Amino acid sequence: MVSGERFLVEYLVTGDEAEAYAKVQDICVEQTVEFPPEFISEEWIKEDVIGRIENFSPAFPNLYKAEISYAVETTAYELTQLLNVIYGNISLKPGILVNRLELSPGLLSMFHGPRFGREGLRKWLQAEGRPLLFTAIKPMGLPASELGKLAYKFARGGIDIIKDDHGLTNQSFAEFTERIKYAAAAVNKANAETGGKSIFVANITGPSDEIRERARLAKRLGAKGLMVAPALTGFDIMRQLADDDGIALPIFSHPAFLGSFTASETSGISHFALYGQITRLAGADAVIYPNFGGRFSFSKKVCEKITEGTKAQMGKIKPIFPSPGGGITLPLIPELLEVYGEEVIFLMGGGLVKRGPDIEDNCRYFRQLIMGKAKADSA
Amino acid sequence: MVSGERFLVEYLVTGDEAEAYAKVQDICVEQTVEFPPEFISEEWIKEDVIGRIENFSPAFPNLYKAEISYAVETTAYELTQLLNVIYGNISLKPGILVNRLELSPGLLSMFHGPRFGREGLRKWLQAEGRPLLFTAIKPMGLPASELGKLAYKFARGGIDIIKDDHGLTNQSFAEFTERIKYAAAAVNKANAETGGKSIFVANITGPSDEIRERARLAKRLGAKGLMVAPALTGFDIMRQLADDDGIALPIFSHPAFLGSFTASETSGISHFALYGQITRLAGADAVIYPNFGGRFSFSKKVCEKITEGTKAQMGKIKPIFPSPGGGITLPLIPELLEVYGEEVIFLMGGGLVKRGPDIEDNCRYFRQLIMGKAKADSA
Repeated sequence: MVSGERFLVEYLVTGDEAEAYAKVQDICVEQTVEFPPEFISEEWIKEDVIGRIENFSPAFPNLYKAEISYAVETTAYELTQLLNVIYGNISLKPGILVNRLELSPGLLSMFHGPRFGREGLRKWLQAEGRPLLFTAIKPMGLPASELGKLAYKFARGGIDIIKDDHGLTNQSFAEFTERIKYAAAAVNKANAETGGKSIFVANITGPSDEIRERARLAKRLGAKGLMVAPALTGFDIMRQLADDDGIALPIFSHPAFLGSFTASETSGISHFALYGQITRLAGADAVIYPNFGGRFSFSKKVCEKITEGTKAQMGKIKPIFPSPGGGITLPLIPELLEVYGEEVIFLMGGGLVKRGPDIEDNCRYFRQLIMGKAKADSA
Repeated sequence: MVSGERFLVEYLVTGDEAEAYAKVQDICVEQTVEFPPEFISEEWIKEDVIGRIENFSPAFPNLYKAEISYAVETTAYELTQLLNVIYGNISLKPGILVNRLELSPGLLSMFHGPRFGREGLRKWLQAEGRPLLFTAIKPMGLPASELGKLAYKFARGGIDIIKDDHGLTNQSFAEFTERIKYAAAAVNKANAETGGKSIFVANITGPSDEIRERARLAKRLGAKGLMVAPALTGFDIMRQLADDDGIALPIFSHPAFLGSFTASETSGISHFALYGQITRLAGADAVIYPNFGGRFSFSKKVCEKITEGTKAQMGKIKPIFPSPGGGITLPLIPELLEVYGEEVIFLMGGGLVKRGPDIEDNCRYFRQLIMGKAKADSA
């Protein structure tokens, strides 16, 4: 039987009122018993296990908003099965979008979420009261020693967080161990020289049977954070890494391979729920996503929704940092400061080389812009 | 440096010719170096690491087909990174669809793919020259003992493969160990009585740190196959399970949470590449997908494409079974036999209870239909 505790999922469903309502009724069955209710003889299963429509109302022309509640027991308190109840089979049906989750206290208490969160990550970096600076060593093809030299320049220039490019895993050009060794040592050297507190973040996205070992290895080699692309590895691996006391490093979520979930306005998962709620539940301390105005297609409104999702009330699950990236350049920083305020991590890659050949100086300029100590030029 | 071996990805890209070509050029950079090429000083990185346009031609009005080749070294021979090169960041950009993969011999040789494949699974089941029959125990909420009784009836009635419903993981209603124990024992009992060769397939989709143990446990408890939903767990976990000699059971891929990748005709991954090529590469022996004409929205054409993908030439990677499900009913079987022939696994759930209360008899009738020994009635 069930405890009576239920959690809510808000869906947006296309169609006229009758069509949309039929879809919502179908969701209740499809996501739980997946069986014709008329052939179920146990009354309590029909009452409690099948999803329950708690609300149904028009949202836009031909679009309805529905809240469905599910018994917490259907999730088995597993992230994989929670995602399955929320959007498993219905991901295969058109015109259904997961808009927002409202997880119940008992369910939330079964997840630790991010180990650090915004506050913890600031302490880890000893950086209060300002946006954080983030960049990546690249391009793929450079040897580990060259990538290390880049990491050194970035750290000398005052970038808080220096990460592997998300395409760097264990290629022969710059194997994992060698790359992390060079990059972490380079950042430490720069810190020792400048008194800075920069950290190196290792990309551990890789084979499922190696990720945990790569995380531990990265830590031993001096990495002070980890990056994972949950759409490539599975969200639950991120959760496992975040929960692991033997690892205990901040986790940065990368959006590679995740785009299809938000490619449609009437199907998939909302940016708010996916980059905010689900990514937090899965233990990331910061969520990378493509910023508006860059080379990707996310709108400013969507980026604001993600930011909301990173801090929306979720019991004891900590707020995490939004980390817009993808085409951010130095001239954009003043506008971005107005949009994001100080609770943000700006991820700038190619933008840091476009100003001129002195990368260290470009980084210093980036930092001055962030601190409000320089005006943007047109570089 | 690189070996010179390259693999191909065929993309469909929206736009007029100039727009589409610019998009294709962008893919070459975005999926590899992710860095402005004009700031890369190493000529070989620009020549060999950046993707290379091998073909570009009109496909439909405002839609272009492009073949891009990538150096095999960019993948680090990891499934996660291969998927990242194919569709990582560009999943976040509109109007780009992965249509087809053409993996090179050296790259293919790094993956084992399915352990059984079509031929191996037929041997495992001792069932030659006919479609295979597949069903699921459900609904969620029933205790393990009741689910076991259902498995018994299905096996008595001659269903070849009896699996957990994909929503059954480790809920308190029917915990994993107890459920597998009951179901596997029930199928064995029925086999002993009838001389049948039915198998029970355990759903091991679950927490990343428990999946492998669940696989081993299921095997010890008598399960003769495993089901995984790769969109929930990550594709690479399926690969890991398939490669594990200590497990060595057939693997059934379930499409839960995978729908967004095929929700659009101009974005995502084609059914052919996703359900066929990628699922095979990731080690599934059979791929479950929603059949046409049922309660999902896949068209007949799409189902044919999936079937093509399950057997398209991929070096030594074995062909696997297409397993259409989702709303298949007994009256549909004759038509489906014409479409699929005998190289198919028909997954029927609710359809097996709609004919009447005697489930064992319904299964027997299903089997007779498959064998061409009964005519479809209108039940």
